[in-house]
Amino acid sequence: MKLTGVFAPIPTPFDRADRLDTKRLRRALTRWLAHPLTGFVVLGTTGEAPLLDDDEADRAVGAARETIPADRPLIAGTGRESTRSAVRAAKRAARLGADAVLVRTPSFFKRQMTDQALVGYYTSVADASPVPVLVYNFPALTGINLQPAAVSRLARHPNIIGIKDSSGDVLQISDLVASAPGEFSVLSGSGSTFYTAVSMGATGGVLALACVLPDACVRLFELARAGQHQEARALQQQLLPVAKLVGSEYGVPGLKAALHLAGYDVGLPRRPLPPAPEAAVAELREALCVLGG
Amino acid sequence: MKLTGVFAPIPTPFDRADRLDTKRLRRALTRWLAHPLTGFVVLGTTGEAPLLDDDEADRAVGAARETIPADRPLIAGTGRESTRSAVRAAKRAARLGADAVLVRTPSFFKRQMTDQALVGYYTSVADASPVPVLVYNFPALTGINLQPAAVSRLARHPNIIGIKDSSGDVLQISDLVASAPGEFSVLSGSGSTFYTAVSMGATGGVLALACVLPDACVRLFELARAGQHQEARALQQQLLPVAKLVGSEYGVPGLKAALHLAGYDVGLPRRPLPPAPEAAVAELREALCVLGG
Amino acid sequence: MKLTGVFAPIPTPFDRADRLDTKRLRRALTRWLAHPLTGFVVLGTTGEAPLLDDDEADRAVGAARETIPADRPLIAGTGRESTRSAVRAAKRAARLGADAVLVRTPSFFKRQMTDQALVGYYTSVADASPVPVLVYNFPALTGINLQPAAVSRLARHPNIIGIKDSSGDVLQISDLVASAPGEFSVLSGSGSTFYTAVSMGATGGVLALACVLPDACVRLFELARAGQHQEARALQQQLLPVAKLVGSEYGVPGLKAALHLAGYDVGLPRRPLPPAPEAAVAELREALCVLGG
Amino acid sequence: MKLTGVFAPIPTPFDRADRLDTKRLRRALTRWLAHPLTGFVVLGTTGEAPLLDDDEADRAVGAARETIPADRPLIAGTGRESTRSAVRAAKRAARLGADAVLVRTPSFFKRQMTDQALVGYYTSVADASPVPVLVYNFPALTGINLQPAAVSRLARHPNIIGIKDSSGDVLQISDLVASAPGEFSVLSGSGSTFYTAVSMGATGGVLALACVLPDACVRLFELARAGQHQEARALQQQLLPVAKLVGSEYGVPGLKAALHLAGYDVGLPRRPLPPAPEAAVAELREALCVLGG
Repeated sequence: MKLTGVFAPIPTPFDRADRLDTKRLRRALTRWLAHPLTGFVVLGTTGEAPLLDDDEADRAVGAARETIPADRPLIAGTGRESTRSAVRAAKRAARLGADAVLVRTPSFFKRQMTDQALVGYYTSVADASPVPVLVYNFPALTGINLQPAAVSRLARHPNIIGIKDSSGDVLQISDLVASAPGEFSVLSGSGSTFYTAVSMGATGGVLALACVLPDACVRLFELARAGQHQEARALQQQLLPVAKLVGSEYGVPGLKAALHLAGYDVGLPRRPLPPAPEAAVAELREALCVLGG
Repeated sequence: MKLTGVFAPIPTPFDRADRLDTKRLRRALTRWLAHPLTGFVVLGTTGEAPLLDDDEADRAVGAARETIPADRPLIAGTGRESTRSAVRAAKRAARLGADAVLVRTPSFFKRQMTDQALVGYYTSVADASPVPVLVYNFPALTGINLQPAAVSRLARHPNIIGIKDSSGDVLQISDLVASAPGEFSVLSGSGSTFYTAVSMGATGGVLALACVLPDACVRLFELARAGQHQEARALQQQLLPVAKLVGSEYGVPGLKAALHLAGYDVGLPRRPLPPAPEAAVAELREALCVLGG
Repeated sequence: MKLTGVFAPIPTPFDRADRLDTKRLRRALTRWLAHPLTGFVVLGTTGEAPLLDDDEADRAVGAARETIPADRPLIAGTGRESTRSAVRAAKRAARLGADAVLVRTPSFFKRQMTDQALVGYYTSVADASPVPVLVYNFPALTGINLQPAAVSRLARHPNIIGIKDSSGDVLQISDLVASAPGEFSVLSGSGSTFYTAVSMGATGGVLALACVLPDACVRLFELARAGQHQEARALQQQLLPVAKLVGSEYGVPGLKAALHLAGYDVGLPRRPLPPAPEAAVAELREALCVLGG
Repeated sequence: MKLTGVFAPIPTPFDRADRLDTKRLRRALTRWLAHPLTGFVVLGTTGEAPLLDDDEADRAVGAARETIPADRPLIAGTGRESTRSAVRAAKRAARLGADAVLVRTPSFFKRQMTDQALVGYYTSVADASPVPVLVYNFPALTGINLQPAAVSRLARHPNIIGIKDSSGDVLQISDLVASAPGEFSVLSGSGSTFYTAVSMGATGGVLALACVLPDACVRLFELARAGQHQEARALQQQLLPVAKLVGSEYGVPGLKAALHLAGYDVGLPRRPLPPAPEAAVAELREALCVLGG
């Protein structure tokens, strides 16, 4: 199972009382299904996973699987701080129909989360998970950067099939590609550097940007893979402002605001996450307008 | 309810199968109760709170309350990433007999956790919590530093009674003391700077060090409060090596190893936290030996 | 030669054409001499040393020495990036009458400036310098923190008499005091934590704040040394706003603006250092006004 | 004057007494001249510029110019902390025959070196310099990152012709290319990401790696410019280990050790820079050996 292409890490809708709203989740998914996206991630960072209880998480995965046809891969975010909870979450997601699980590095006890501890963690999770495991590295949020050498060791595990790297460091993407075996999937988590990552050998991306502009992201991927570097570079440059705004700049609130502007009904972030500030909405409106024109 | 004195943030024992072990928790607590500690914190950072499920957390609070007599304050750590979960956890802890709750800043979505967002979060939790709330600021682990100005605003809430500040920044302790009303409790979370914090006006401490050396910590507090600065400074200097080893240096694994050396039966950290490395145990043995001699 | 007390690290005046203005330097010094300051530092960080050529530096040291009577210690900042230049600068300053030299850690090649490299550097400078050497550690500006263990080794050199530590980390001050021999001078470079540093055993301070409020700083030092902790703490608290504004907050531009408000004629910072922004001047005016009232 | 191609930032030899050794500088340059490098930078970071006095700097520029024929561009590093010294250094370098000057951001007073202050600095230097100015941004060493928006403003100055960006951040390279006018030169300072930088539109590089492996760097540039991405990527991957070792990993000591292994006689770094540790030499020997085989 090699993951190639563009995956949308879909946001999680909440209702006005801040409760999980699976009805709107299904509706939004139906709309994304009409686009040529390869597959979907539920409960990634943009899915506000750390703000959901286990029970809510299960309902979100279940609703997603019921909506997404079997031939479109569904990946569920199941990272937890303890090995024990991560194993359980992976098992539950598999039972609910996820094709693979995306497991973020535990990070609360930063100093103790050495590469060795993380290799132990992922090995335990992969040993126990009924479905393949994707490692998930996001240094800006976790304060931890899993080194390519550790990933290379993990890549030998038969149930660890790839990594989503959101470091935005294309040199690291290049290292990951060089040091992992051929069938290992290296997915970029950064829309701002997606063209470069693919031209460095990344096999695809899990991009917040792909929720907002799915067709453009797929086209960017195809151009880069086909070696049409000039067109790819030009398209990447056009997408850059939106990529930044829904990425590091305004995060989940920015993404939900952008989706609202694009006609998706995904509501506001869960508290204590604030809604996007007005200035962000104005910037997003302008950046999207330029692309639409 | 003003919190004055030395509180021990007790670790959480797990059995060999990595399950919560409330029996050993009770036994260890019984031993600590024999020391002149003011009170106890369960499920703080040293209690490995982020590694426990809600159900386990409730059992730990319940077991602690049943062991600790009503005249010794029990504070339960109930911080969660979402406002909703934090409110629920506070309610459950209150029902289980906690006298107050200690609520760590949510921190996963760092950039969005502005002072304004955090003021909103704590206000919601304090509005709903049946017992008083202590703010908990630990920048080294969360990547977020709640500013004294924001704390000063929160201090006006009738149900927010104090802060545990683990920044180790005594200037910040001084700012907190100066800007908060007189009845607000400012507790230091750093054993290495405890004397300084108290001489700056901190009303007490929640110190990992106090699990290992409860009598010495209480004496240090009393000396500092009594204005016996020379003796206090000398004692602080003696305690410094152990304070560092069970604090920033080796964290929870260091604390559990130190307690093992001191005859407490609290087991190993929960995975993926590794046990303390051998070098740490050797350093701890020597540092404790010097104090005992 | 033990350095005890409060030293003023005086700023360097420039004329409208951005040339060194020794005339105004002498005039300002004359005014500071009327205050009970222990001694003076020329060409420290607040003296904009990195913005002066060697020739200008020599003229500034010469002018200061001619103005300051022999019974008031004059310390000259002579740190340079290369060992060779630092040796030469120390020799020239000694010839011009400096009683000691203050040598900042070289820091451009950060990763190579290990404690071992820095011990070599200071040893070479101290071997060659005709006058005693003070180590100068300022992590916020250099990106390097010389560890107490390395300072402890340097303290054994007969020509290295002390350290100015501007880390603002009072735990580090405490470590320096504990690990250095009794005759070694530990001077704090942080006005915001001066009381704490002295109560931790620092022998004095080199404080930008002492240029603006010399009498108050001397009084704070005396209170802290005499064990009058309550008064000392209250005074430190009063001085805190100005200390921050002329310290980390607005740096040299802030200090020169504060001195202008206090009636000193020290001009503007040398370019590319900008003058203090208007908001800074307003904050300073208010903070000074509160103290004066 | 558009700078396109590969420039070697040559190291500065010192003799055993740590004095500038222009004789060996000339000899080494003669050897580099036999390679198809576009041009040379003297007194860049790898030239240990911050460790030289003005007089030595002038002698190094003079010796380089006398050795390098007029049709090969010579760029002199002339950044200084003060605007005044930077203007003077640029004038002297121009008089000694430099074709352009490379001016590093001043950085000692980090907090005050805002984009606005830096725009003022560069404007003053460019107004006064008889030869064109290249901006030089090196965040890892200076602690300052000049923003693309500020560079875009500077690019309008008729005497500012380009930038050397050593951030290693290819997204920033992409921003610089997009926001600057077409004739502005964007040179990468990072050998590890050179292919990517060129494929992002960089017009060339100033690479420590090009001192050690000039032919390979020139070939990498040509492949990338010709759109032969697969070959370019493979070559970049091969060069990566050496690029890292002489770049961020071991800096100037690493570069001088690598050159020694490659038969260049450039001596040791100037003190306090230490020679490369033995482990570094072993790693370099192996990495170079692999390439040579």
